[in-house]
Amino acid sequence: MTKLDPIEIQSPQCPVPLRDYPEVILAHGGGGKLSSELIEHVFAPAFANEHVTLLSDSTPLNLPNQQIAVSTDSFVVQPLFFPGGSIGELAVNGTVNDLAMSGSRPLFLTAGFIIEEGLQMEQLLRIANDMGRAAKTAGVSIIAGDTKVVERGCGDGCYINTSGIGVLLPERAIAIDQARPGDVVIVSGTVGDHGVAVMSVREGLEFETQIQSDCAPLTALVQAMLDAVPNIHAMRDPTRGGVAMSLNEIADASGCGIELDDESIPVRGPVRAACEFLGLDPLLVANEGKLIAIVASSDADRLLAAMKAHPLGRDAAIIGRVIEDKNRLVVARTPVGTKRIVSVPIGEQLPRIC
Amino acid sequence: MTKLDPIEIQSPQCPVPLRDYPEVILAHGGGGKLSSELIEHVFAPAFANEHVTLLSDSTPLNLPNQQIAVSTDSFVVQPLFFPGGSIGELAVNGTVNDLAMSGSRPLFLTAGFIIEEGLQMEQLLRIANDMGRAAKTAGVSIIAGDTKVVERGCGDGCYINTSGIGVLLPERAIAIDQARPGDVVIVSGTVGDHGVAVMSVREGLEFETQIQSDCAPLTALVQAMLDAVPNIHAMRDPTRGGVAMSLNEIADASGCGIELDDESIPVRGPVRAACEFLGLDPLLVANEGKLIAIVASSDADRLLAAMKAHPLGRDAAIIGRVIEDKNRLVVARTPVGTKRIVSVPIGEQLPRIC
Repeated sequence: MTKLDPIEIQSPQCPVPLRDYPEVILAHGGGGKLSSELIEHVFAPAFANEHVTLLSDSTPLNLPNQQIAVSTDSFVVQPLFFPGGSIGELAVNGTVNDLAMSGSRPLFLTAGFIIEEGLQMEQLLRIANDMGRAAKTAGVSIIAGDTKVVERGCGDGCYINTSGIGVLLPERAIAIDQARPGDVVIVSGTVGDHGVAVMSVREGLEFETQIQSDCAPLTALVQAMLDAVPNIHAMRDPTRGGVAMSLNEIADASGCGIELDDESIPVRGPVRAACEFLGLDPLLVANEGKLIAIVASSDADRLLAAMKAHPLGRDAAIIGRVIEDKNRLVVARTPVGTKRIVSVPIGEQLPRIC
Repeated sequence: MTKLDPIEIQSPQCPVPLRDYPEVILAHGGGGKLSSELIEHVFAPAFANEHVTLLSDSTPLNLPNQQIAVSTDSFVVQPLFFPGGSIGELAVNGTVNDLAMSGSRPLFLTAGFIIEEGLQMEQLLRIANDMGRAAKTAGVSIIAGDTKVVERGCGDGCYINTSGIGVLLPERAIAIDQARPGDVVIVSGTVGDHGVAVMSVREGLEFETQIQSDCAPLTALVQAMLDAVPNIHAMRDPTRGGVAMSLNEIADASGCGIELDDESIPVRGPVRAACEFLGLDPLLVANEGKLIAIVASSDADRLLAAMKAHPLGRDAAIIGRVIEDKNRLVVARTPVGTKRIVSVPIGEQLPRIC
């Protein structure tokens, strides 16, 4: 527990300086005075909301109804900051999107930090502020928090767990086992941006155009979609394992096959080029602001129009259809007319992407 | 991503072997097939409950009412297994106890794992089974989970975040700002067991008697206490920062002072000896199955009797009283009649204790 040179770090919303430490030290996670300072100067101003002070061990809340959805996700992305986002935005949007995909309105998040001793205090402030801003954008309140600090070499800067509570929207029965033969598969935009953006900075790759993560909260897009087509059958945000993983989960849960048209899958030029260079299949690369929707073919055009009218669905496209297949395979028709099986990855092409 | 020698690990509740890997590898956290296998063979059997399969991204739940309490905590204890418990039991009981202290009945937990590549699969199975057993004992269901795997040297075996949801018990107004001058301070048992138990194995210390962690869920004890005395003013589980931290938080929040009688604080002989040897103050050492209750003096005897009648409150004792003090100090009267200030630790005497 070395005391470092004093420095005054001023949080934008907090007038009192955070004393003495330009870096996070073990004592910041000890539950004592320095832990309280970290909460007071870094997290409380960044997460400010009407529900809590973040200083108590548990937070009482009133829910608008008794049907809730709950989700949890840990974020270990490396590097902590990447083109288009940071671990802070990812930690909020990732859990918000998991809740939104189940047809619930995300309301509350908890935030658990595991910080490696030596993280720059300025970086932690940026992460906290990114989280606070992302929460505001997504319409959720961060209502409980926890900070642990581990010794140098026992972490990697900062890991964040967020758990979320949403209230189920009335009469929605969106679930990944609701896809039916004849349904249409829609993706809300270009595929692979997040994974390639993180990978390119991590590997020091430079492409002609800088590739940005698509990290975004999907709540407003989902609301617009449900307003247009209340009866969406299934939704999924294709994060780890990409579109391939999500579609295989839907096919498997619903007992159907899925057939994609390779040419109709939107992929940005630079992302496609990077994937070719790195030997990646864009369908397997993680997205953090995209969704897949499965809908009856009679509703598909209406849904697509509603998606295209929303900024996060501008590049939405019909990419395939649900078919009968007792083997529950996802296949893609290539431009030359052949078919290939889009299988579930065994592990992941790109570790530490979220 | 090295493939290791094949091995068959059989989970006690799961007939299908977990293929190939005696250790956790990066791909187990990739969201692909190996992630699913880990869920299916390690977590799902260990956490089995009526609410979920743990395989979806979010879990819909029905709550008995709309007033809830929410809590989150990350666990980074080292070593993962210690006399009297493991990180698995700690991760369940820690969050359960935070909820119980607010006068709520814990119902649901989420579990987020950050595993270091190379963790023995057998250890992960033990941790998961410990969590499942602890959840059953505490009467909570683990209803959502997430697993990330980080490279060797970027973690320390296994970190666990648990977030919890409880329903507020009717008409309870237990809060740490409710202590009043004249109130009595009760502790539910001996102090310092958990911290010293972990520290002794970590430092390779051997004492004549092996010191066991007190790790336990406090829900049943709290229920028995509330049945006897509905109007408990404040409760706190003295974990990180120990009894000293909890009492200082209560004094500070309530605007009072607290006076302890050093001699009345129960400390096991071997724990006292170890603290003397290690230069620790037992009041600053973490507990994981103890609580402090603040209650009107007219209710104190009844509450103490109810606590002593419960196995987890057998050694309960009145250790002090709340006094008027605009400086909000916690002081302890020593056996020789002098007073010392029991102050908030700046950091923590013992890092990585929970």
